[in-house]
Parts: sequence; C-alpha cells; structure tokens
Amino acid sequence: MEDKKNLEAELKKTGKNLKTKDRALKALVKCNKALVNASEESDLLNKICQIIVETAGYRLAWVGYAEKDEKKSVRPVGQAGYEDGYLEKVNVTWAKTGKPQGPIGKAIRTGKPSIMKNIGSVPLYAPWREEAVKRGYASSIALPLKDKRKTFGALNIYAQDPDAFDSGEVNLLKELADVLAYGIISLRVLSAQKQSEKETKSTLKKLRGALGGTIQVVESIVEEKDPYTAGHQRRSTDLARSIAKEMGLSSDQIDAIRMAGSIHDIGKISIPTEVLSKPTPLTDAEFELIKKHPHVGYDILKNIDFPWRVAEIVLQHHEKLNGSGYPRGLKNGQILIEARVLGVADVVEAMSSHRPYRPARGKKKALEEIKKNKGTLFEPQAVDACVKLIAEKGYKFKQY
Amino acid sequence: MEDKKNLEAELKKTGKNLKTKDRALKALVKCNKALVNASEESDLLNKICQIIVETAGYRLAWVGYAEKDEKKSVRPVGQAGYEDGYLEKVNVTWAKTGKPQGPIGKAIRTGKPSIMKNIGSVPLYAPWREEAVKRGYASSIALPLKDKRKTFGALNIYAQDPDAFDSGEVNLLKELADVLAYGIISLRVLSAQKQSEKETKSTLKKLRGALGGTIQVVESIVEEKDPYTAGHQRRSTDLARSIAKEMGLSSDQIDAIRMAGSIHDIGKISIPTEVLSKPTPLTDAEFELIKKHPHVGYDILKNIDFPWRVAEIVLQHHEKLNGSGYPRGLKNGQILIEARVLGVADVVEAMSSHRPYRPARGKKKALEEIKKNKGTLFEPQAVDACVKLIAEKGYKFKQY
Repeated sequence: MEDKKNLEAELKKTGKNLKTKDRALKALVKCNKALVNASEESDLLNKICQIIVETAGYRLAWVGYAEKDEKKSVRPVGQAGYEDGYLEKVNVTWAKTGKPQGPIGKAIRTGKPSIMKNIGSVPLYAPWREEAVKRGYASSIALPLKDKRKTFGALNIYAQDPDAFDSGEVNLLKELADVLAYGIISLRVLSAQKQSEKETKSTLKKLRGALGGTIQVVESIVEEKDPYTAGHQRRSTDLARSIAKEMGLSSDQIDAIRMAGSIHDIGKISIPTEVLSKPTPLTDAEFELIKKHPHVGYDILKNIDFPWRVAEIVLQHHEKLNGSGYPRGLKNGQILIEARVLGVADVVEAMSSHRPYRPARGKKKALEEIKKNKGTLFEPQAVDACVKLIAEKGYKFKQY
Repeated sequence: MEDKKNLEAELKKTGKNLKTKDRALKALVKCNKALVNASEESDLLNKICQIIVETAGYRLAWVGYAEKDEKKSVRPVGQAGYEDGYLEKVNVTWAKTGKPQGPIGKAIRTGKPSIMKNIGSVPLYAPWREEAVKRGYASSIALPLKDKRKTFGALNIYAQDPDAFDSGEVNLLKELADVLAYGIISLRVLSAQKQSEKETKSTLKKLRGALGGTIQVVESIVEEKDPYTAGHQRRSTDLARSIAKEMGLSSDQIDAIRMAGSIHDIGKISIPTEVLSKPTPLTDAEFELIKKHPHVGYDILKNIDFPWRVAEIVLQHHEKLNGSGYPRGLKNGQILIEARVLGVADVVEAMSSHRPYRPARGKKKALEEIKKNKGTLFEPQAVDACVKLIAEKGYKFKQY
C-alpha cells in the first residue's frame, strides 16, 4: 500500500514535470518560429509575450525598454495577458536612487534575472502590491534583454502561483529572453542597414549628378570653341562604352573610357576657333595645329588626380596600331586598350556626323572604313564589336 | 500486484518521455545559442551537428547542400559524430533519375522530411546498407533546409535505434532544421551585405575621384585664363563649406555650396586675360567687363542638370544684402543663402591673397572688412561664423 502511494506520488510528480517541459518546449519552438518570421520589432515583442501567456500559461508578460530620460523610466513596448491598466499605474523606473527599487529596475541595472515570489507579502513589493494582487499576480520575474554591451530592457512575467519560477524554469525563460533580444537586435541591424542603403543611394545619385553636370561644363567649354562638333564627345563616349562592354572589358576599364571619352577633346580649347570651324579643307599648318590637341589635353589633365589614367588615354586617342597616328606614333601594345577603343568610336562618330567642310558620310561608310583598316589602324576586337553593335544589334547614337 | 506493475510501467514510460523531452529541450536551447553566436556558416553547421550528436544522442549528423552540377550531388558541408569515411563512400545525389533514390535526395526534391527505419532490412536502402550497418546506423532522417523559395540542402541524422524518429521527435527535428536554415540564410544575407557595402564604398570612392578630377579640369581652365587667382576657387570653397557647417546649414546646402563654389568663377573664361591679370587698377570699362563673369557663368551652367541650383548660386555670388551688388542688385532674402555664404568666403579669401595690382591685405583686414559691413553687405550669420572660425578656431586656408 505504502509502495503504491509512493509510486502514485512519483508518477504524479513526473507527469507534472513532463507537462511543464512539454509546455516549455512548445513555447520555445513557437518563439523560434516568431523570430524566424519577424519583420517588425513591435510585432515580435507582442508575439513573444503572447506565446508566454498562451503557451507557457502565465498571467501577464510585457517588455519594457530602459529609457535614458531624466526619470530613467521603463517604457512598455509590448505585452500580452491580463493587465487592466497595471502598466500605466505602476510607473516603473530603473533609477538607482529615489523611488523604491523594484525587481525590473534591478534586472536592468545588474543584467541578471530578478525574481519576486509571494508578491502578497514581501515588503520590497509594497509600492506595487495592491495593484498586483488585485490582478492576480502572485509572483514575478524580470529578465534582462541585452545586446553585446549592455542591458537595454527587460522581459517581465507574472504568475498566479506565488511560488513559480524554479531554477529550471528560470533557465528556460532566460533562454527565451536571449532569443528575444537576438531577434530585436537583428531587426534593428536590418533596419539600420536599410536606412544606410537609402542614404548611400541618395549620395550616389547626387555624386553622379554632380559628376555628370561637371562633365557637361567641360563639354560646353569645348563646344563653345568648336560648336560644329557639339555632342561629339558624348556620342563617341557612349559608343566607346558600348564597344568596351561588347568586348567584355572590366568595369574599371569601362569607367576609364567613359571618363576619358567625356573630355577627350579638351585640348581643343587652345586651338583658334577659326581653324576648328573652317568650312574648307585645312592647310598642313592648320592640321599641325589640330594635331596638338591630344597633347594640350594631356597637359591640362596630367596633374589631376583621377581614379583612372585619363590623361594618358586622352593623349593616345589618335594613335594608330601601325604607328601612323599622333602625337607620338605609338604602335599596337604601346597604346592603352582604352585609347584603342576610344579611337575606333571617335572615328565612327566623326564620320557619321556632319562637319563644316563636308556632309556626314554615314554609319555605313564609317563601318567600311574601320573594317578596311582593321588591324592596321584600328584594334581588331574593337572593330568587330563596333560592327556587331551597329550592323547587327541596331545600336543608334543618342540625341543630346 | 497487477496495479503496481501497471503503475511501474507507466512511470517508466513517463520517465522515458520526460528524458526525451528534456534532451530535446536542451538540444534546442543549445542550437538557439549557437545561432545567436554564429558568425561563420561552416562553424554554425558543424556546431549544430555536434549538438545533435552530443546532446540529442544520435550517432551521426551531417549537412549536405544540393549542388547544381551535372550529377546533382549533395555536398557535405558540416558534420559531427561517428562517420569513418561514410560520406565519401556513399556519394549522395538529389537527381531524379539514374542511381537508386535515397531519402536525402527525396527530402531535397520534395521539401519534406524523409525517414528510413530499419536500415538493415528495407530494400530501398540497399545501395548504402553495407556501409551504414557497419557503422551502426539503424535508422535515419533527412530534413530539408529551405529558404523562402526552395530547398537548398538537407540536415541528415542517423540513429542506432532501428525504430527512432517518432512523430514528436520529427516535429522537433523539423524545428531544429528550420532554425538552422534561418541561421544559414541570415549569415548569407549579412555576408552579401558586407560585400555590397564594400563595392558601394569603392564606387563612391571612384565617383568622388572622378568628380574631384573633373572639377580640377574646370579649375585649371579658369586658372589658365586668370593665373594670378590660382587656387582661389578651391580655397574660398573650403572656407565657404566651413562657414556653412559652422552655421548649421543642411548637408544638401553644404553640398550645393561646395559644387557651386568649385566653379563659381567659370564665367571668367570669356574675359580677356589682359584684363584679368592687369597689374594696375582697372578702368570703369574694364571693371564692367569683369562684372559680366557671374552672368557668363550662369549662361554656361543654366542648362546643366545638377542636383543643386548651381547656376543660380554662381549668378548671385557677387550680390550684396543692401542691393549694391551685381549683376542684378538683389537684396537680402532675394539672394540664396548659399550665395550669401559663398560671397563672404569669396571676399575673405580674395583679400587674404596677393593680386597683381596689390599685395595681400591679410586675414585680419579681411575680417575687419566683413565685420564693418555685416548686415549691410554681408550675411550676418555667415560673418559671425567666419570670424569665429578664423579668429577663434584657428581656421587656415589650405595650400594647393
């Protein structure tokens, strides 16, 4: 008989224990799910409180953040369960001095869980007792929420059992508070990243705008000198960039071509307008003047700190593979690939456009010209890419 | 007697159940901790496998990723427990055709857990049986690892018990696999963000470099016309920016001042060099020519698409509060704040520097000048900020 009673008692205890574990396990699983699916901080807070009340079976759960205001108040930011105005009435703080010290403030200050059993009788709970007892809170625990450096709030749980929160339970609830803190921090990191991405995007947009605008300033200065080639730098740069892409050049090479292309005729500012705009064929002396523009451009650019070799590309954009170009008569590999690409685009755009001393010859003639001189004057890969773009892919010069 | 036996049996069952739950709970708590602390994907994978083996008591746990190679192989990426070359020997795939279909491939294809009990006898397991039995694997489960759209791998667990993996256990292990998948994805998102931040940083750096370089091009064009004021645009822009910061202007206004300041004398390119560099006082007619430069600058800039009102600021940088400035004689609030700030910096820099027709008058005189005319000619807030910077904060003009 005695034996049986003992067995029954043990079975009861084990069964209760099993129930508790089962409940805890379910609550933890649900909290994990909530964490995985969270996208809004306040939703996560309320959801976790709800799981604590509904699945783990407590009377009230709420989350408070430690404010840095003068009162050091603990601001409720999420809750679930029977509350009935309690949070507004009790006015929790985490200040070290002044008002009586409650378990929540202690948890926040020490970073350790703070348990309060028998709320109805312990003296420390006096300031909140009446309101707590009225609502059926018989014991409570405050669990710190921490990021790497400090405690930023507390998860507060109230039970109807005056003797709740044994050590196993506390360990589990600590776990749960850590999961919650991790979720909160993850969401904040995510939202900070979104904000910073937004700001970066706006900075990028402004920088691009400023760069585009400043390039236009340079273009307009060149074009004031040489109005007949208005838009030439832009159109040839756009073509050169497309050729470079078609050739599979690196993004850095493409950027270099765009930058150098946009200002490749800057040296023309030192050539007299009469020569640049002359409606009849140039004399040898005049052509010699024209041929100075890559070098003048180089001189303007050589001391400027660009992320690419802009001055060198500008200097080389009239060189030809067989050494017949100017100003230095460089050959093949002596000429930067960026300059070789720009050279092809420069010729094709120029031949396709009207000039004071001749009508436009058209894209067809331009393509014939580069095909005929492929490998002797012009970079073969750039020629192939250019022909493919214009003849097959329907590339068109942009209108500016 | 019968009663007691029943009770004992029930107690045993409940006790075993409790043990199982307890183990599961511990494993889940440890997995959560591993997730919270993870910083490297492979560390997380190995850690979770280790917890499954050591805390949950299985014989082997490993994670395989579904590769997109021709064989559709399942690549082992993390493991713990007794393995002894098993993973190398069995050569798992998730292909639908060809080799016999195993539980892992099935879990990956269907996105559902795939359980294999009694490995020693089920026909389906034949290809792997010998190696499995040798190592004491009697049952196994493959749990899919999923992101939002698809299954990207499987968590595979082997037990010594041929009848392991009841429904409660499966639910928990599913939970665990979800936690693991969440952790993997979070780490990947984080690492992708880091990569993209790095790229953005490099883009920003290049854009800033390109913009800085292009501004220098414009400066050098202006300075070629007017060599005696070399560096004036940069120095006055730097001062104007510092004044704007001191005044607490918005970052957008500061950016506008920097951009407009950098090219504010662009209109000088249309004034004859002889006038700009004249070593004796200017005649009225010459001064009238000089006074045209804000308008010429405006004409160059007015159609250019800047993120700020650059043309308007350039046009207004010689206006004065009392209407005595040029070209339009605007007053007070009619003048953009950016132009008012730039106007103060322009005067202070000019007076502090040497000119062909006069020596430098020095910063002290320059400050006296703006203080004397504060509120009549010059924006009072800008004057105060400028005086504070130079007289109190030790502001010095940069050397370029």
